[in-house]
Amino acid sequence: MWEKETCQQIYDENRERFIEEWKEFLRFPSISADPAYSDDCQRCADWLTSHLSDLGFQTELIETVGQPLVYAEYKGKPDRPTILYYGHYDVQPVDPLELWDSPPFEPEQRGDRLYARGAQDNKGQTIYVLKALETLLKQDALHCTVKLFLEGEEETGSYGISSAIPKLVEQGRLQGDVLMVCDTGAVAAGVSTITMGLRGIVYLQADLHGISHDLHSGSHGGIVKNPATELARLVETLHDQNGRIAVKGFYDGVSDIDPEDRKLANASPFNASDYEKQIGVPPVGGESEFTPVERKGFRPTIEVNGFHSGYGGPGSKTIIPDSAFVKLSSRLVGQQDPQKSLDRLVTHLEKHAPDGLKLTISDKGVGGPALMLSSQSPVIQQASEVLKQLSDKPTVYSWEGGSIPVVSSLAQASGAEPLLVGFGLSEDRIHAPNESFSIKQFELGFLYATMMLSQFSSTTQTEV
Amino acid sequence: MWEKETCQQIYDENRERFIEEWKEFLRFPSISADPAYSDDCQRCADWLTSHLSDLGFQTELIETVGQPLVYAEYKGKPDRPTILYYGHYDVQPVDPLELWDSPPFEPEQRGDRLYARGAQDNKGQTIYVLKALETLLKQDALHCTVKLFLEGEEETGSYGISSAIPKLVEQGRLQGDVLMVCDTGAVAAGVSTITMGLRGIVYLQADLHGISHDLHSGSHGGIVKNPATELARLVETLHDQNGRIAVKGFYDGVSDIDPEDRKLANASPFNASDYEKQIGVPPVGGESEFTPVERKGFRPTIEVNGFHSGYGGPGSKTIIPDSAFVKLSSRLVGQQDPQKSLDRLVTHLEKHAPDGLKLTISDKGVGGPALMLSSQSPVIQQASEVLKQLSDKPTVYSWEGGSIPVVSSLAQASGAEPLLVGFGLSEDRIHAPNESFSIKQFELGFLYATMMLSQFSSTTQTEV
Repeated sequence: MWEKETCQQIYDENRERFIEEWKEFLRFPSISADPAYSDDCQRCADWLTSHLSDLGFQTELIETVGQPLVYAEYKGKPDRPTILYYGHYDVQPVDPLELWDSPPFEPEQRGDRLYARGAQDNKGQTIYVLKALETLLKQDALHCTVKLFLEGEEETGSYGISSAIPKLVEQGRLQGDVLMVCDTGAVAAGVSTITMGLRGIVYLQADLHGISHDLHSGSHGGIVKNPATELARLVETLHDQNGRIAVKGFYDGVSDIDPEDRKLANASPFNASDYEKQIGVPPVGGESEFTPVERKGFRPTIEVNGFHSGYGGPGSKTIIPDSAFVKLSSRLVGQQDPQKSLDRLVTHLEKHAPDGLKLTISDKGVGGPALMLSSQSPVIQQASEVLKQLSDKPTVYSWEGGSIPVVSSLAQASGAEPLLVGFGLSEDRIHAPNESFSIKQFELGFLYATMMLSQFSSTTQTEV
Repeated sequence: MWEKETCQQIYDENRERFIEEWKEFLRFPSISADPAYSDDCQRCADWLTSHLSDLGFQTELIETVGQPLVYAEYKGKPDRPTILYYGHYDVQPVDPLELWDSPPFEPEQRGDRLYARGAQDNKGQTIYVLKALETLLKQDALHCTVKLFLEGEEETGSYGISSAIPKLVEQGRLQGDVLMVCDTGAVAAGVSTITMGLRGIVYLQADLHGISHDLHSGSHGGIVKNPATELARLVETLHDQNGRIAVKGFYDGVSDIDPEDRKLANASPFNASDYEKQIGVPPVGGESEFTPVERKGFRPTIEVNGFHSGYGGPGSKTIIPDSAFVKLSSRLVGQQDPQKSLDRLVTHLEKHAPDGLKLTISDKGVGGPALMLSSQSPVIQQASEVLKQLSDKPTVYSWEGGSIPVVSSLAQASGAEPLLVGFGLSEDRIHAPNESFSIKQFELGFLYATMMLSQFSSTTQTEV
């Protein structure tokens, strides 16, 4: 593996050029949500393809149902591992434009930060990986096989790449040992952070209805079942008194937390009183026998995202609402099967629905499965060794509560061990006006990617 | 007591004049809800006062915090009962005006109906009482004391008369044996109907809050308590599995149903399959050991009038809502004390509120107590005798589920026995465009009021 000093020296020599190329990438307004920018997405994909060809990759622009997928492959030595890399070249919309201090697609360096839409998410983190690959290739030091999947619809649901997965599997392209992703964040500047888990997600809407119109609560109160009351009762059945999910079979696939992972997770910085200061309420939700960090990282949830029924204006209106609906979503962990979990939730709702009203389930969705890593995984241990060299502070192992369904799907389809290390910071304002990325964090990203890929280059396949 | 035939003959002789005076009353656009009609309300009150003076009443226009209260008193013989009469001269707004087939304040007779705003509610039903009083006075046959309270704010909450009650009690004006009201309806044309009960009402809003903003359901799911989920759980605690209210002490003041009342109530026309056809759902709400009619008339309720939290738009939005609120109202029966019932509900909500979120109770309101009559009451029995003569069909005894708080308050303050008989029909479209009143029902009202007041005139005080 290359020493940090070697990588640092190369970075220092190439810093200005790297930043120029980063800016070039940022000038494409590749907003996937707005069809008006469809051509810009295409141009951005072409630029990437050509850039990767120049580096020595075999490239292909794969057409999908949506924006094209940039595929690039470099064949390493046969006994070295295959590294799949996932990233995206599309960006979020820029509204409200007037809140930007400089135009979103005219990258501007101010202080130690580069400002532009996509500066961090995900162009900034993609470009340092490309520069790391370039560095190793120039020195003839890239010996692992690398397959890049750079999609153009991450911000709009990843439909293109998701629907292309079966074909990619069939073609043998989506086969590898490690699935490397640099689209996550660090808990603080200079603190190395490995994302150890993402939860899966499924969702649905449940409506209780059947009453022809809002009823007078005097003339009908006590005669009919009240849809709002009954929906509240139905929601209540989803959890027991200890916050545990009461849906039959819902915990199938949820394992006990590995003691080492539990230790690492709880070592991540989480302070109940800071949390309460920031969020307004104490972290006392969920299953009472787990810590907040454990509940977020290792336990499933069923959350009400919305509940609406009847009158909501000022004062009182004495009606029995004609209907009530609730939007539910569930975060999944471990080996929970998304479709089965969704089915179990539906079965539970149907079983507990009141007689005298009608239940309709709609808008069912399967976002994807969970992705959960173990600190015992050889890939994680190799990454830890690399990251240790980049910071004096202990590496944080973060089991996230959120979901990146496409990453989970790619991991599942490929069988590759995911490796999610990113250098974004909460102050980067991704998805918001004045997005930026710290050039210092960009540098750490480059150092990490170069050392990591150099490490993979010197590892035999069986070691990862 | 006067025979029906006598009354009928007088009606037939005076029919045209009665209708003309009814029209005169209807021409005042006495809309209490709209300050633009304040002078019209005043003029309508003046007209009533002058009309009652002409009949021989001592009248007074009592100024209140709102529209004036028309007070009129006729002193009968000392050993005869005192009849309090409550009605209102204000009417509902007329919007949407374009849906009226004739101008709302230009009364028009079409077929057997008189069309105008207030044709029934309550001017039509008030005028037949005034004509009954006039009839008896002209024949020197009114021997009971009669005190009329005609308010101008029934459609906007009865604030004026309600706040005047303590003073009216102090002045000895609100003292009587019977509180007669003709502001209710009959179950069908020609079917005599006695309203035997009105439920009381209290209401409030409960908010669960404390989270600073909507949270990402992945990053925070399982960490905080979800306000929507917790509010659903809180609502669930309000009832037990059999639909019985689970608020401690809430049934204080609720008596067993008198067997005779139960028989009469269940004899009123109610058909489960007709109900389901009309309303869309079967009548299976509330406490399972009572019939629908019993539940509506004799049992209290706590109903959710509205429940709102989080996302309600199309598709999914995976948030934990920052707050949730519910609007609750409770119908009271028997001797339930409204303030105590409201306090008990608040105490229950506070006791069962989740830790980790804040509960705020607001918009608390006490509409008024219940009013419940017994079929054994001498006044009801006298009314039954009168009504029997007006129809071949059996009289319906209807314990209503709704509330007329001012009537309950007047009954409670006066100690008088309420007598609620009215001749409105569901097709009268009160509160809606094209309000009308059947002239045949108006005639029945006149006959009833004349015979009833003649009966009271021949009764000693101890007999009512």
